Amino acid sequence: MVGYKFMGKAHSHAYKDVGMFFDLEAGVAMKAICGRDEQGVQEAAEKFGWESYETDWRKLVAREDIDFIDINAPSDAHKEIALAAIANGKHVFCEKPLALNLQDAREMLAAAEAAGVKHAICFNYRFLPAVQLAKKIIDSGKLGEIHHYRATYLQDWLVDPEAPLAWRLKKEVAGSGTHGDLNAHSIDLARFLIGEFDRVVGHSRTFVKERPLPVSTSGLSGTGSSEKGEVTVDDATGFLADFKNGAMGVFIASRFASGRKNGNTFEIHGSKGTIRWDLERLNELEVYFREDEPELAGFRKILATESVHKYAANWWPAGHIIGYEHGFVHIVYEFLQHMSTGSPFAPTFLDGVRCQEVLEAVDLSIERGTWVSVEEV
Amino acid sequence: MVGYKFMGKAHSHAYKDVGMFFDLEAGVAMKAICGRDEQGVQEAAEKFGWESYETDWRKLVAREDIDFIDINAPSDAHKEIALAAIANGKHVFCEKPLALNLQDAREMLAAAEAAGVKHAICFNYRFLPAVQLAKKIIDSGKLGEIHHYRATYLQDWLVDPEAPLAWRLKKEVAGSGTHGDLNAHSIDLARFLIGEFDRVVGHSRTFVKERPLPVSTSGLSGTGSSEKGEVTVDDATGFLADFKNGAMGVFIASRFASGRKNGNTFEIHGSKGTIRWDLERLNELEVYFREDEPELAGFRKILATESVHKYAANWWPAGHIIGYEHGFVHIVYEFLQHMSTGSPFAPTFLDGVRCQEVLEAVDLSIERGTWVSVEEV
Amino acid sequence: MVGYKFMGKAHSHAYKDVGMFFDLEAGVAMKAICGRDEQGVQEAAEKFGWESYETDWRKLVAREDIDFIDINAPSDAHKEIALAAIANGKHVFCEKPLALNLQDAREMLAAAEAAGVKHAICFNYRFLPAVQLAKKIIDSGKLGEIHHYRATYLQDWLVDPEAPLAWRLKKEVAGSGTHGDLNAHSIDLARFLIGEFDRVVGHSRTFVKERPLPVSTSGLSGTGSSEKGEVTVDDATGFLADFKNGAMGVFIASRFASGRKNGNTFEIHGSKGTIRWDLERLNELEVYFREDEPELAGFRKILATESVHKYAANWWPAGHIIGYEHGFVHIVYEFLQHMSTGSPFAPTFLDGVRCQEVLEAVDLSIERGTWVSVEEV
Amino acid sequence: MVGYKFMGKAHSHAYKDVGMFFDLEAGVAMKAICGRDEQGVQEAAEKFGWESYETDWRKLVAREDIDFIDINAPSDAHKEIALAAIANGKHVFCEKPLALNLQDAREMLAAAEAAGVKHAICFNYRFLPAVQLAKKIIDSGKLGEIHHYRATYLQDWLVDPEAPLAWRLKKEVAGSGTHGDLNAHSIDLARFLIGEFDRVVGHSRTFVKERPLPVSTSGLSGTGSSEKGEVTVDDATGFLADFKNGAMGVFIASRFASGRKNGNTFEIHGSKGTIRWDLERLNELEVYFREDEPELAGFRKILATESVHKYAANWWPAGHIIGYEHGFVHIVYEFLQHMSTGSPFAPTFLDGVRCQEVLEAVDLSIERGTWVSVEEV
Repeated sequence: MVGYKFMGKAHSHAYKDVGMFFDLEAGVAMKAICGRDEQGVQEAAEKFGWESYETDWRKLVAREDIDFIDINAPSDAHKEIALAAIANGKHVFCEKPLALNLQDAREMLAAAEAAGVKHAICFNYRFLPAVQLAKKIIDSGKLGEIHHYRATYLQDWLVDPEAPLAWRLKKEVAGSGTHGDLNAHSIDLARFLIGEFDRVVGHSRTFVKERPLPVSTSGLSGTGSSEKGEVTVDDATGFLADFKNGAMGVFIASRFASGRKNGNTFEIHGSKGTIRWDLERLNELEVYFREDEPELAGFRKILATESVHKYAANWWPAGHIIGYEHGFVHIVYEFLQHMSTGSPFAPTFLDGVRCQEVLEAVDLSIERGTWVSVEEV
Repeated sequence: MVGYKFMGKAHSHAYKDVGMFFDLEAGVAMKAICGRDEQGVQEAAEKFGWESYETDWRKLVAREDIDFIDINAPSDAHKEIALAAIANGKHVFCEKPLALNLQDAREMLAAAEAAGVKHAICFNYRFLPAVQLAKKIIDSGKLGEIHHYRATYLQDWLVDPEAPLAWRLKKEVAGSGTHGDLNAHSIDLARFLIGEFDRVVGHSRTFVKERPLPVSTSGLSGTGSSEKGEVTVDDATGFLADFKNGAMGVFIASRFASGRKNGNTFEIHGSKGTIRWDLERLNELEVYFREDEPELAGFRKILATESVHKYAANWWPAGHIIGYEHGFVHIVYEFLQHMSTGSPFAPTFLDGVRCQEVLEAVDLSIERGTWVSVEEV
Repeated sequence: MVGYKFMGKAHSHAYKDVGMFFDLEAGVAMKAICGRDEQGVQEAAEKFGWESYETDWRKLVAREDIDFIDINAPSDAHKEIALAAIANGKHVFCEKPLALNLQDAREMLAAAEAAGVKHAICFNYRFLPAVQLAKKIIDSGKLGEIHHYRATYLQDWLVDPEAPLAWRLKKEVAGSGTHGDLNAHSIDLARFLIGEFDRVVGHSRTFVKERPLPVSTSGLSGTGSSEKGEVTVDDATGFLADFKNGAMGVFIASRFASGRKNGNTFEIHGSKGTIRWDLERLNELEVYFREDEPELAGFRKILATESVHKYAANWWPAGHIIGYEHGFVHIVYEFLQHMSTGSPFAPTFLDGVRCQEVLEAVDLSIERGTWVSVEEV
Repeated sequence: MVGYKFMGKAHSHAYKDVGMFFDLEAGVAMKAICGRDEQGVQEAAEKFGWESYETDWRKLVAREDIDFIDINAPSDAHKEIALAAIANGKHVFCEKPLALNLQDAREMLAAAEAAGVKHAICFNYRFLPAVQLAKKIIDSGKLGEIHHYRATYLQDWLVDPEAPLAWRLKKEVAGSGTHGDLNAHSIDLARFLIGEFDRVVGHSRTFVKERPLPVSTSGLSGTGSSEKGEVTVDDATGFLADFKNGAMGVFIASRFASGRKNGNTFEIHGSKGTIRWDLERLNELEVYFREDEPELAGFRKILATESVHKYAANWWPAGHIIGYEHGFVHIVYEFLQHMSTGSPFAPTFLDGVRCQEVLEAVDLSIERGTWVSVEEV
């Protein structure tokens, strides 16, 4: 695994716990974790339970005792590491975004396909029980023809103008800001749930254009110095979408939504019903069915913790909720099974590319002030 | 008053009740109600408490015992009646939309201003206690600089393809569909709360293009015949907006949102906090303040029924909620006071015009596939 | 009508509006309102729309142009007025509690039955659409055998120790405190929904034993003087109950529940499902059905504003909520129909007596420190 | 560790993860797990990450490489194992209930104190961030004097009369039913949050008196055979309580509450505010402060995932919720620190005894039909 910060911790936890709650065809051995700062990575290795550590990812991807590489380093490093890992025949599990731009993402997909390795992009929210239930309901036809898709991904950690200029706010490292970080998740969920995008039109803002340079970083924010630097990514991006199936969509992402901590939501209206979900209450799915008796129809709040709900039986009895990190355990479980048994798996690098196409079409639409067809990018 | 259906009932109720709960400078006498169908209007007059009735609005607007005219007939009749009333020096209280198009609306405004009569457009939702509280919070600066405005107005009475072709679905009578009916309310609330629109871009759909011709009508739907007619208005319209104050906006209106019965909502993110409201729970306002102690900050669900909340003390003790029709009582109260004392009043025909400008800019943006400046229309 | 304060206003409103929204067999004429303070009652008569007023209820109950008497004066006056009205052959509609004690209540019932007049007690909450729906669901068997009934009625207007000593806090006028005012409603709803009580055991508190004597009163609270008087009723009373059908019950009423403004709630668990309701969101009923597909079972939030819901079609289209006072319109409608057509009606004085029995059994259980059978009182 | 089923899994997970997210003074080594069925315990050892296994707990408590024993076997085995472990000088971490009855529990406490070993009872819910926040708010005086405490613990896995007769339904193994399993948690939270009980009065039911004997068990329910056995514990128990500080309390526990999956809730009204919590949304705490500006007062929904909330910074950024099992990680963390550094720790066996006293006082009150002082048992 390359990377040992927020995502490194979430992924490590998944590898550590997956075997305890799921029956794996082949087990999982946590061979090595890699990071540039020796002290940091050594501590992480010990704390997270890795057998060894490396400070040079080139060494890591060359190790013979390693079958697959998990990449959760900052976004600008994804491509180079992934291509090297693929060249060595390793399977690759990559954090989103796949790359800094669409061209790089396509190159990675082509390399992985040519090499015949297994590849995954970590769109972890697909793997929450309530989201799986949403997918199942839609696929079963219970929602009918889809008319509307509305998504938000709202956080508020940048509302404070004194929040420092973290790497996620520099375009050259992060590739994109709120759009690439948050809308990426919403776009993937929309593709997963109702299908492909046709065209988009958007707008964006950088509300605070200069921020204190970071002194130390801890978590997402850290403390800032008195010197300031330019914010080179967006604070918020919203866009309208037409889907290929005729549905209307709208997507809003912001890091300036006071009080919304992790407001990754979707609401989908179909000819037979409606579905709503919110990551802040990730165990719940709200569903309305028009076919319910008129007097008794209403939004149902389904607590997706029953043994009949996907993955739920692997954890606790009904009503004992799971948390954010469980999505990583589930995606890791599915990818491990995929590698060892060839069971079907998505999202792959292809989904990373498709997501990137929508992101870039939105950027282009903002530049042009018009609708842009996703096929154009 | 001209009109005696859904809105006629709501307005009549307001005139009937306003004096019981509010201290009016001058009272209100319910002189006459007008409609084309003699039996219908006679029954309405009796049931709703009007002293007399007319079947020709020309006679009504000419009556000397009448000081002001309330117009809630179908939209295509608004202009002609209003101009005649104004010509006779009557004050005018008009249902939205002011007219079928912007040019007509502007003509009505000009006429009213030239004649010096008092004029109002019935954007009733401004006058709910929770909305008044939202306005007060924003004006006080407690929300800080406004970054985001999101509105929906969602209903579902057209999801059923067998719902008949009511007059609201014919462009020549209604002027517009979901956009003019529902987005109009959302646009007005946005203008009321955070100010003027700069530019917009939208999309719209007519999901069901033909519907059964209506046989009888009751309520919004009625029963349909086996013959079908063309739907000439939109079923759903969404648009992005930039506001003059720099805020980003998004507005979604639909009559195809299964399970949403009257989902008129807004959520406003400012640099200091957030406000949310939903007409289905119209007594409640959700507010988040960033300045609350970090450990204790959270969305507050304020039940706007305390005596300190506007209009609430005129009704019942705290916690005894009010309903939809109370907004009409409040707007009627304010307009009656305005006529008798000259107290400030909005929304006037000017607000009707401003709203119409945004509606038409959206229509133009849909036609062009680009952003359109509101000043352009 | 006798009484013109909070309840006088609510009842007057009901008589004023009922004919506008409901088809009455016989109309309703608001003949006279009665109160001891001439100026106050004169103003009320004018504002509320009564044809005349009286300052002596003896005159009122003797008037030949009056068919029925509505009593909403303070509780200690109910009995005397009711007996006089019954003696004159008037139908009687009485606010709860029927009387200051069980014996008086029984006397009133006996008198009304002997005279053959129609009688009603104003348990208005039975007549809200969501409560009617709850009743219908239970009666249909959809909830199965009832296992649990939990009710609260929570307010907070007495938490402030400086809130003055209003008449509702004097046992000699009000008869009882929180128990008689709030638990009375909860007991009636329980009887209406699931049937009769078998035995009870309770406890109660007067948290603030002395309060400032009232100077002026407005609403429930008013302002207090520097002199203090003794509070002679309970601030909070809770009790356990066994029902005759075997269900377990619990009832909690308090005026010291900070933040709960009008928290009249019930939750009923049956062998097939659960129902919940809260007066602060009185249009909504939450329902869970065990027979729903396991994967899709969840609490449904039913907005009881559809035309299929009782009384809803008399008001507005779906999603346009009603408020607190609508319950009075409905009960008045039913009682007017009952008087003119003989249609079935409850709650009558009998229900007032039954409710009083449970209230007094609880009081006795508190005195004794043991369970008390309701039949014993 | 003794036991490897539901609780065994939850505890094992805690030992496995605690070192990854918390800085332990001394680490933790998962030496051995113990169970009677060799195949089952061997599999559990491997899956959960234990170094070895035992099939005889006597061997386990005698092992010299083991410092402390975690007991989560069925309740009837707690006492014997604990006493043996204590006799060998091991620290003991015991699942609730401490023992089958109060006398046994007192014996265990006395033994632990005499031996000077560290002891804990696993009341895990104390250690959730939102519950810790509730405690902090109350201790700070922000809620003022406490007037009311209401708790429920509602599940529905026994509503189905065909649910088999699991060990939890046999008094001789489980000691108690719903009362001891669920009210125990509620009693502990009440003691933790507002203090000691004075007296209680209750009632209880066994709604389904005979159930199919279990064939195989999986999770809580499993499948049943056609033969039936007697249920010897309660399905539901409710009770009223007076607290020593003068507060009124009510506690309701049921396994027959359709739709409530894990409805462990409390609502606490104080003279300055109110707190509510629900285990099904365990990351949230609802709080109302009377000192908030009257116009802006409302229940705050605090998402206790900010870095300022206890334990939250050890996990993920704000808004990334945690689940049920995290409470075990936290209690295990605190007890490990307690053992290695002597840091303060509760709940100990003393809390187990206190809880048992209240449970038995309720049982006695049911037998007698009167209030029972907790000191009496």
